[in-house]
Amino acid sequence: MDKQQMSAAIIKARQRLDLSWADLARAIEMSPVWTTSACLGMNSMPADKAEALCHRLGLPAEVALALQAFPHKHWDKSVPTDPLVYRFYEMINVYGDTIKELINEEFGDGIMSAIDFSMDISRVADPKGDRVQIVLNGKFLPYKAW
Amino acid sequence: MDKQQMSAAIIKARQRLDLSWADLARAIEMSPVWTTSACLGMNSMPADKAEALCHRLGLPAEVALALQAFPHKHWDKSVPTDPLVYRFYEMINVYGDTIKELINEEFGDGIMSAIDFSMDISRVADPKGDRVQIVLNGKFLPYKAW
Amino acid sequence: MDKQQMSAAIIKARQRLDLSWADLARAIEMSPVWTTSACLGMNSMPADKAEALCHRLGLPAEVALALQAFPHKHWDKSVPTDPLVYRFYEMINVYGDTIKELINEEFGDGIMSAIDFSMDISRVADPKGDRVQIVLNGKFLPYKAW
Amino acid sequence: MDKQQMSAAIIKARQRLDLSWADLARAIEMSPVWTTSACLGMNSMPADKAEALCHRLGLPAEVALALQAFPHKHWDKSVPTDPLVYRFYEMINVYGDTIKELINEEFGDGIMSAIDFSMDISRVADPKGDRVQIVLNGKFLPYKAW
Amino acid sequence: MDKQQMSAAIIKARQRLDLSWADLARAIEMSPVWTTSACLGMNSMPADKAEALCHRLGLPAEVALALQAFPHKHWDKSVPTDPLVYRFYEMINVYGDTIKELINEEFGDGIMSAIDFSMDISRVADPKGDRVQIVLNGKFLPYKAW
Amino acid sequence: MDKQQMSAAIIKARQRLDLSWADLARAIEMSPVWTTSACLGMNSMPADKAEALCHRLGLPAEVALALQAFPHKHWDKSVPTDPLVYRFYEMINVYGDTIKELINEEFGDGIMSAIDFSMDISRVADPKGDRVQIVLNGKFLPYKAW
Amino acid sequence: MDKQQMSAAIIKARQRLDLSWADLARAIEMSPVWTTSACLGMNSMPADKAEALCHRLGLPAEVALALQAFPHKHWDKSVPTDPLVYRFYEMINVYGDTIKELINEEFGDGIMSAIDFSMDISRVADPKGDRVQIVLNGKFLPYKAW
Amino acid sequence: MDKQQMSAAIIKARQRLDLSWADLARAIEMSPVWTTSACLGMNSMPADKAEALCHRLGLPAEVALALQAFPHKHWDKSVPTDPLVYRFYEMINVYGDTIKELINEEFGDGIMSAIDFSMDISRVADPKGDRVQIVLNGKFLPYKAW
Amino acid sequence: MDKQQMSAAIIKARQRLDLSWADLARAIEMSPVWTTSACLGMNSMPADKAEALCHRLGLPAEVALALQAFPHKHWDKSVPTDPLVYRFYEMINVYGDTIKELINEEFGDGIMSAIDFSMDISRVADPKGDRVQIVLNGKFLPYKAW
Amino acid sequence: MDKQQMSAAIIKARQRLDLSWADLARAIEMSPVWTTSACLGMNSMPADKAEALCHRLGLPAEVALALQAFPHKHWDKSVPTDPLVYRFYEMINVYGDTIKELINEEFGDGIMSAIDFSMDISRVADPKGDRVQIVLNGKFLPYKAW
Repeated sequence: MDKQQMSAAIIKARQRLDLSWADLARAIEMSPVWTTSACLGMNSMPADKAEALCHRLGLPAEVALALQAFPHKHWDKSVPTDPLVYRFYEMINVYGDTIKELINEEFGDGIMSAIDFSMDISRVADPKGDRVQIVLNGKFLPYKAW
Repeated sequence: MDKQQMSAAIIKARQRLDLSWADLARAIEMSPVWTTSACLGMNSMPADKAEALCHRLGLPAEVALALQAFPHKHWDKSVPTDPLVYRFYEMINVYGDTIKELINEEFGDGIMSAIDFSMDISRVADPKGDRVQIVLNGKFLPYKAW
Repeated sequence: MDKQQMSAAIIKARQRLDLSWADLARAIEMSPVWTTSACLGMNSMPADKAEALCHRLGLPAEVALALQAFPHKHWDKSVPTDPLVYRFYEMINVYGDTIKELINEEFGDGIMSAIDFSMDISRVADPKGDRVQIVLNGKFLPYKAW
Repeated sequence: MDKQQMSAAIIKARQRLDLSWADLARAIEMSPVWTTSACLGMNSMPADKAEALCHRLGLPAEVALALQAFPHKHWDKSVPTDPLVYRFYEMINVYGDTIKELINEEFGDGIMSAIDFSMDISRVADPKGDRVQIVLNGKFLPYKAW
Repeated sequence: MDKQQMSAAIIKARQRLDLSWADLARAIEMSPVWTTSACLGMNSMPADKAEALCHRLGLPAEVALALQAFPHKHWDKSVPTDPLVYRFYEMINVYGDTIKELINEEFGDGIMSAIDFSMDISRVADPKGDRVQIVLNGKFLPYKAW
Repeated sequence: MDKQQMSAAIIKARQRLDLSWADLARAIEMSPVWTTSACLGMNSMPADKAEALCHRLGLPAEVALALQAFPHKHWDKSVPTDPLVYRFYEMINVYGDTIKELINEEFGDGIMSAIDFSMDISRVADPKGDRVQIVLNGKFLPYKAW
Repeated sequence: MDKQQMSAAIIKARQRLDLSWADLARAIEMSPVWTTSACLGMNSMPADKAEALCHRLGLPAEVALALQAFPHKHWDKSVPTDPLVYRFYEMINVYGDTIKELINEEFGDGIMSAIDFSMDISRVADPKGDRVQIVLNGKFLPYKAW
Repeated sequence: MDKQQMSAAIIKARQRLDLSWADLARAIEMSPVWTTSACLGMNSMPADKAEALCHRLGLPAEVALALQAFPHKHWDKSVPTDPLVYRFYEMINVYGDTIKELINEEFGDGIMSAIDFSMDISRVADPKGDRVQIVLNGKFLPYKAW
Repeated sequence: MDKQQMSAAIIKARQRLDLSWADLARAIEMSPVWTTSACLGMNSMPADKAEALCHRLGLPAEVALALQAFPHKHWDKSVPTDPLVYRFYEMINVYGDTIKELINEEFGDGIMSAIDFSMDISRVADPKGDRVQIVLNGKFLPYKAW
Repeated sequence: MDKQQMSAAIIKARQRLDLSWADLARAIEMSPVWTTSACLGMNSMPADKAEALCHRLGLPAEVALALQAFPHKHWDKSVPTDPLVYRFYEMINVYGDTIKELINEEFGDGIMSAIDFSMDISRVADPKGDRVQIVLNGKFLPYKAW
């Protein structure tokens, strides 16, 4: 069972049981972003989390094994087309140099890790229309000189 | 004076006066991200902010006019090459579908605006190495049916 | 049932019953553009519209469910090849800077939303050959400063 | 004098005299979209319009000649980056097949001309935020069989 | 039955009956180029021609219906690879500006239509080796000013 | 003097003397297409033609030398953007397989040469709007077996 | 039977009978390069050669027919990835201008044909390691003036 | 002095002295292909050859130094546009798999070196039109197992 | 059996027998990098190694034959997306010119072979976090002059 | 002074003083790879190293300042063209999945850092031809779950 079949099985079970991604995350005591990304095949789960998730969804052991596999992360297009995803691509390109200037100013030369990294998504109530808030949090890694 | 010449003038004055981006932002009472992005030519400044900034930096009126111009936002490469910026490109592609699932689950079909939008960057102290925290905040825009 | 299978089922039923897209739109009291785009998998339908459409076409509940799903919008080619679609791509590129100048002149810095947005297509009789008229209508979104 | 130098001269004169694109269009009794596109080098002007425009802006005859030249229309990127222009690119790709279906349903096999074509942009007042309205109007051209 | 299956059916029948494209064109009293392009799925046939073609080839009604469908014209590669087709791509790029200069000189600003358009291919005997002659004939469309 | 400077010199002289491309072609007793393409730097001229052309335009010997140089043919974009040139790109892709079928049917396996090749452009009067006619004529080259 | 199925059948039979490409070429009295290219679907065989090849390999008549079909030559990638093929791509790009200078110096303006063309591959013994020798031989085609 | 300036100086001197590439090669007792490629900046010359070449052309020492520099080999386009160079690109792609099959059959798994490599170009007289012959000769390099 | 089926069979057997890549390499007395690359279809194995590997994994003779086949090496994307692989792509581009300078300084003009080449991967213990060490070792190949 | 001007100044001084990269590295007591990469503008130097380097080369303070600036790392082409650099690109793509398998097998899911990273290049004497050895050493970064 590959990651694609695994995702399909999870999505199907989730709909049958009427569970949200947030419900699934709660069931395994992890964040919704990480849980969803692992279910969509973009992260690997430790065995206990994978088994807890399959238990909650009534899915067989092979799904739990597929969840533990280390994924090959890939995407089809250099420029995403879905409007929701494209907007983030646009932000990065509009603000890329700004982010670089401010991180370099604060920390020196280096990067923010995309591996030792977490992300959270939440709703912020607003009378003019509710807002999406996304928090990215990554370890600063200084360039090494040798 | 175009946006590129404007940025060069600001960066030069900033170095001469030894002012950080954060100092400049404080001087005009705006956030560092927005201030830096306007100085790099990716946002337009209202007249009062542009004049305050030029006053602080000892720059002539033509810089203030260039700051007020509405920018053509463009970038050279579909896939950014600088490691710091690439990591954000990677995050978006690895977590794009996850973000879409969770925003759709919480808000329904629509997107997070990249226009009615703000971003903040801060340092989070951590004994295992300090971390960069970036907060993206955009209005949810539901798709219209007609 | 995914969006592609859904579209195929609708197109087949539509041909069997000899219904135009305009007929379908009338049946669910929505515009032809929005109705067609939802049937082609590029928009999601509210439950009542989806059920009305399936009722009119004699299609089962799973089609109505597929119509309600939030689509991943994607297209294969950066530059469209079909001559009808390419002409619109050409218009945008020939007139893109003009549109930007005039919207910015009238509204200030910002964009026309592609989400809070509607489109209508109609025939305009003309003795020298009838004309296609397309009306795009989107909310103006000013850039936020923070 | 090439089209780029011509545009620069017009924009400079326009700012010196504090004339909007709409003012310029009124001065030569043409639409703002067509007038702006010719000033940006994407259309050629008949001699009388070119001269009237240069008269209004106090520009020399060589600008009028450059306005009459037949332009080579070109753009740099297959996918536009400026957010305002990108939104139109997105609309065309999201609604491209829908537009094709509805034009074909109404007119038969053929295209809407991008040459025998006009475009108008206007503001539509709306209590929830004013809207941009763009009207595209092109002759229907049926495919020829031979 | 889609256009691809339709083409396959026609090609098979054509080989069984040992009919050239020229024979098929004669049978429906149309040109070989247009007839072939419709059989390959790049043009739509009026009902009477589609039925005449299917009659000649002994093909069922669903093929005639597929021939009448309005095609989505698409191609896989921006630069064609087959040597015969590439040579035409090369001609267009080597002579593109020349063609533009000469059409503009003769007709003014505008284009040659690719829709109200016909093409013919013939053999020209030549003692040094026979030659292929291709005649492209399209209506001149002047740009509209408004 | 390179080909670009040569073209600029010819175009300037042509405008000063108010000579069309057709006039220039007549002056050197060659076709307008070939003459124009050589003046635009896409073909090399024999010495006598180059000198005759420079004589007619009152241009110095170095232009005649540049006309004789063997050009490096290049173009910037895989897909042309100017609408007039794009229409030809579209024709080739829409009719590419058709052209191949018909040439192969008539001549066997091989190609139409783009080197031993000529092109002519003319106006065809038509009460419904005059038409552009382009004739491409190239030697058939059969594939060699060895 | 298409060219891909044809190639698969030939390769299978070749392995079963333990015949090299050189053996096959000898069997039909043609060169190994041309024979292999036809078996891989990149050239068409005359009927007698196709039948001789099928006879030698014990393959049915439909393989012989597929060998005679005129191929659509295509390749997937602009830049080849296999190291052996890439090295040739590199040679052409490193030496492309050199080849052009020397052919033009010797023959005048024109090209070396890739159609009236042959290629041979042989082993050259060398004490420091044997060498591959590839001979390309194509007719010089001068550009035509008209 | 960089390689581009060096090439320009050599080409100018060559024309002034009316020397062919073959003459230059003879003067330094190397092959025309290698000599030309070094003069065009695609190979580095040993000091004695560089000095002999500059002596023959009456060029200063800095040209000889530039000839000795190790070049960065680069080209602008993945697919060459000049017809002469494109034909070689086409050959490689049409015959790439054939070349691989035959080299592998003769030598085993490995490649033909593009570094330990030479190329020669010559004219082959032919009553039906003279031919260009190009000989590529490269060391076979077997893949290493470890 | 092609290389893809071969890899799938090996991976399945490896998991069933709970053997690491390092175990497999030890079983056939070759390095882990080379063994893994051959099992993934990117290198060919000599017969004895292929048979030893199949023996260890309990796989049939056709897997051993597939391991001996000479692979066509190909990859899908110019820029890899998986973060682990991308980091190496980044290193090469950040340090490419540095590597070239230092190899040229030490060895003269030439390259490091990617064919007569080996690679080893090992773990280096480090109190601040263990490190990956990769050693690339390739024969220096000087450019040939002729 | 930007990084490009800085590199040019260093290279010029280095040649005037006849210093190798290795000499420069020794002078500032850092590795040759890191020193060269900083001089080519791909890494930033601490103040003391930058001043030591400029002292050794007799270069002014502005070069030392440019060496300390944090670079924007960029490269022009997705696929490198210089043969020496391309070979490394090829290695990464041929061995990318192998490297991933072996790092994942040894360390679990994660990557080798390209930031907390060092590289060394050395010559390995070999009777069959000396070899280049490159050692890449990067910290293993495990994916974070949250």
